[in-house]
Amino acid sequence: MRVNADQRRSGCPISCSLDLLGDKWSLLIVRDMVFGRKRYFKEFLASPEGIATNILTDRLKRLEDCGIISKLLDPENKRQIVYTLTEKGIALIPVLVELLCWGATYDSASNFDLDKVRQIQQDTRSRQRFLRELEKRCTSPS
Amino acid sequence: MRVNADQRRSGCPISCSLDLLGDKWSLLIVRDMVFGRKRYFKEFLASPEGIATNILTDRLKRLEDCGIISKLLDPENKRQIVYTLTEKGIALIPVLVELLCWGATYDSASNFDLDKVRQIQQDTRSRQRFLRELEKRCTSPS
Repeated sequence: MRVNADQRRSGCPISCSLDLLGDKWSLLIVRDMVFGRKRYFKEFLASPEGIATNILTDRLKRLEDCGIISKLLDPENKRQIVYTLTEKGIALIPVLVELLCWGATYDSASNFDLDKVRQIQQDTRSRQRFLRELEKRCTSPS
Repeated sequence: MRVNADQRRSGCPISCSLDLLGDKWSLLIVRDMVFGRKRYFKEFLASPEGIATNILTDRLKRLEDCGIISKLLDPENKRQIVYTLTEKGIALIPVLVELLCWGATYDSASNFDLDKVRQIQQDTRSRQRFLRELEKRCTSPS
């Protein structure tokens, strides 16, 4: 899904973002990489939402094509592929955090600590700290 | 799309949010209501992304079913339906703003002012002011 400028529905940046990310799975893969520090195909496959193999293959390809993730051979096992977030992928953390806060607040099925959400929403320093911690996870060796 | 707890893919709040909003159109309708102050079916249909009538009908129904928008008869023209954001819908503004910042930063097709984006991202007061202005748009009479 290397979407060229002329394949965008409009020049609205929200629409451009949704051209790439507007589906049920792409941002869950990014979530797995940020919150779960997942890096391998099998790890994504094991997430509780139960993504199908063909959908996972497709979404990883799309995320790579649009520069959100990088794919390389695992230095520790050359037969294995490891996925990492690029700068463009790491920059999605604030999007994930806002989806987290909204889901945690308005969805009774959500299992996230609401006090933590309130803190992030009401105290800008807590929010900044949370964002920085998540960024650090993505840039430091696991 | 009244998604019950047992229809959620998992208890992860990000996944719960995407269960409702993970598609290419739902958040664009919310965008139209927030940024464009749109309230009528015909207005959504006229947006530059060119949503099809049947998709718009479906998404409005879903957004209403999950409590993000309300539908009522226009007090000024009883034959017309007017859509407004609920509190749950207005609470999506931070999600939209982060998608806006990300798209504006990383998509060359985006037409949004990058200086404004930098300001929102780097200065928490600017961000808060921007969020408040958008909220006010949704709660004050047009």
